[in-house]
Amino acid sequence: MGSLDDGTGRPRIHKGLDDVYVKETRICLVDGVKGRLLYYGYDIRDLAKFSTFEETAYLLWHGRLPNREALAAFTAELAANRPIPKELVALLKDLPKNTAPIDAVRTAVSALGALDPDLNDPSRTANLRKALRLTAKIPTVVAAFHRIRNAQRVVKPNGKYPTATDYLRMLTGKKPDKRTARIMDVALILHADHSMNAGSFAATVAASTLPDLYSCIVAAIATLKGPLHGGANETAIKALLGIESPERAGEFVHDTLAAGNKVWGFGHRVYKTWDPRAIILRDVAKELSGRTGNEKLFAVARAVEEAGVAELGPKGIYPNVDYYAGVVYYLLGLAPDLFPATFAVARISGWVAQVLEYWEDNRIMRPLDYYVGPKEAVYVPLDQRT
Amino acid sequence: MGSLDDGTGRPRIHKGLDDVYVKETRICLVDGVKGRLLYYGYDIRDLAKFSTFEETAYLLWHGRLPNREALAAFTAELAANRPIPKELVALLKDLPKNTAPIDAVRTAVSALGALDPDLNDPSRTANLRKALRLTAKIPTVVAAFHRIRNAQRVVKPNGKYPTATDYLRMLTGKKPDKRTARIMDVALILHADHSMNAGSFAATVAASTLPDLYSCIVAAIATLKGPLHGGANETAIKALLGIESPERAGEFVHDTLAAGNKVWGFGHRVYKTWDPRAIILRDVAKELSGRTGNEKLFAVARAVEEAGVAELGPKGIYPNVDYYAGVVYYLLGLAPDLFPATFAVARISGWVAQVLEYWEDNRIMRPLDYYVGPKEAVYVPLDQRT
Repeated sequence: MGSLDDGTGRPRIHKGLDDVYVKETRICLVDGVKGRLLYYGYDIRDLAKFSTFEETAYLLWHGRLPNREALAAFTAELAANRPIPKELVALLKDLPKNTAPIDAVRTAVSALGALDPDLNDPSRTANLRKALRLTAKIPTVVAAFHRIRNAQRVVKPNGKYPTATDYLRMLTGKKPDKRTARIMDVALILHADHSMNAGSFAATVAASTLPDLYSCIVAAIATLKGPLHGGANETAIKALLGIESPERAGEFVHDTLAAGNKVWGFGHRVYKTWDPRAIILRDVAKELSGRTGNEKLFAVARAVEEAGVAELGPKGIYPNVDYYAGVVYYLLGLAPDLFPATFAVARISGWVAQVLEYWEDNRIMRPLDYYVGPKEAVYVPLDQRT
Repeated sequence: MGSLDDGTGRPRIHKGLDDVYVKETRICLVDGVKGRLLYYGYDIRDLAKFSTFEETAYLLWHGRLPNREALAAFTAELAANRPIPKELVALLKDLPKNTAPIDAVRTAVSALGALDPDLNDPSRTANLRKALRLTAKIPTVVAAFHRIRNAQRVVKPNGKYPTATDYLRMLTGKKPDKRTARIMDVALILHADHSMNAGSFAATVAASTLPDLYSCIVAAIATLKGPLHGGANETAIKALLGIESPERAGEFVHDTLAAGNKVWGFGHRVYKTWDPRAIILRDVAKELSGRTGNEKLFAVARAVEEAGVAELGPKGIYPNVDYYAGVVYYLLGLAPDLFPATFAVARISGWVAQVLEYWEDNRIMRPLDYYVGPKEAVYVPLDQRT
């Protein structure tokens, strides 16, 4: 039994599933003590330096780095699948303009399943084809919806460019310079997977009943949205933008904590030290801050980081990936409500990897809840109720 | 620690979360040993006999049976919220005609959030308003999509009728007789909640990151779809329809098990005896079999039940709710691919109850996975890979 009686006659309640292992994995190691993150054994710092999003997605799905031919084929297939069908553009146009981009992409993925000829083929090869289509199309969906809501012409994908470049191009209507595109690429690599985070766990719970892959991804996107998960980058940047100057950082942190609130972008269930992704993104944010001339935002972020770490570090609470991701996306010119959707552009690669791994040895996720309610209520007819 | 080392140096892996308690609850007790099911202490057999879907939904949300005024007000509010906006009808028309109804309702719920003025209000009262709108609109969405895919005129809801009556009316275009409507009502009551089933658990996982209520319901619908959960009623009826006569039942069960397959509609993680809902629905199926003159299907179902219980009963495997639900829906004239969506028409009430209860004391669901992959992979440049 996983839940032994603790002597009170009650089983142990694993609220939040802290410390509960739900599967074996070869995909991703989060070492929360040393502050290390590995995808299939590769250190995230090496991947951020040397790899690309395409190569990283290949690694997550196949367990090895591709050689030149395999990477070229994979990149070409992704590019070829980036266009979205006109039915989907029509659907995006039907959505209310105030729809959050993360909700639009969730709705689009939910609708896209029926357009996939492999939808009901549960084989691994068919699932990899579906995964490729999803990974290719999600950036197009986000960008198309963003253009539609702003009454701008939808920019079609261009198969010449890799994901990061084309995503920025489709969003803004102009091709980013090489370094800007590479910064987005690094952000995608850093967000590609993170073991059993809530979104990947939701995808796994959905997967465990054996629906199609699209259903699992829809569950993941729904879960990513929350500010305790992928919504944190948007919440964090909004807080930082509200701080007048670096000098106010200490006061902000103090007041936030005194009011019993969280400092958004701080803390993680697994990391009890620095999140290695936050360190990489801090360097990127610093660079962007110089390039864009928006030095204030970075200075504020840095000051809040220092004040926050001084207060919270002793409790094992440090900036996580969302803290500096928000700053980076903002300095790349993205609207804050695009941040969670941009997280999805990357994390689709990890969701797929986690679901396919779970399906290799599936078991339905059906926990228990502990009943503390009445056991013998007597049904009183309607007329006799007060 | 929830996962103690078992002496092998590995933590315990709670695959499928068997026997892991994830929350306390007052909503629903599934007594898998005695074969009892309670909603807030009320026996499901009493609710199926005396209650209505509206009253049961009220019970699940408020923890008590409504008095006459409260029930009248709740029923009226549900009826008033049943119409769906024209934007949503347009979206349903954009979906490919081959979209599974459960996928259509998932897409519609995903899109509906942005049309709800309370979307981002996390208060309990706002969530109850959202819950009411969702519960009211889901039957309309299922029926509208079904009519659209069959090139039939969409039937608008009629506020005079309760959910079960209006759902059948909107699907078929004609008002069902009283007894037929009551049978649908009983089916909705029986499907309203079932503690931490995979769909409600997925809703809870999504809820734990604090997105809006629509997001949680989308995750639940995605999870309900699988044949190991709400898709089982469709899978079960298709199997039964393929059996020529009651005399072939023994052979069917034998061959299915000999091939290492499941007998669909049999077995449950919690019930190790009869599912009380299956017994109620068996009686209903028998009645419908007489009324419709389709006696063969019921005779086949009964014969497979007997052969299945003879083989599997000693292992604690009995028919579950999906087994006879499929027969009942089929005899009510529903297309098999509407069965999972019809499950959602009822279960929305339970999903809401479970999410709102979890939000009273939220904690993000973030389990662990146990890493067994390589820890020191060396990044080899692309040109040096074979």
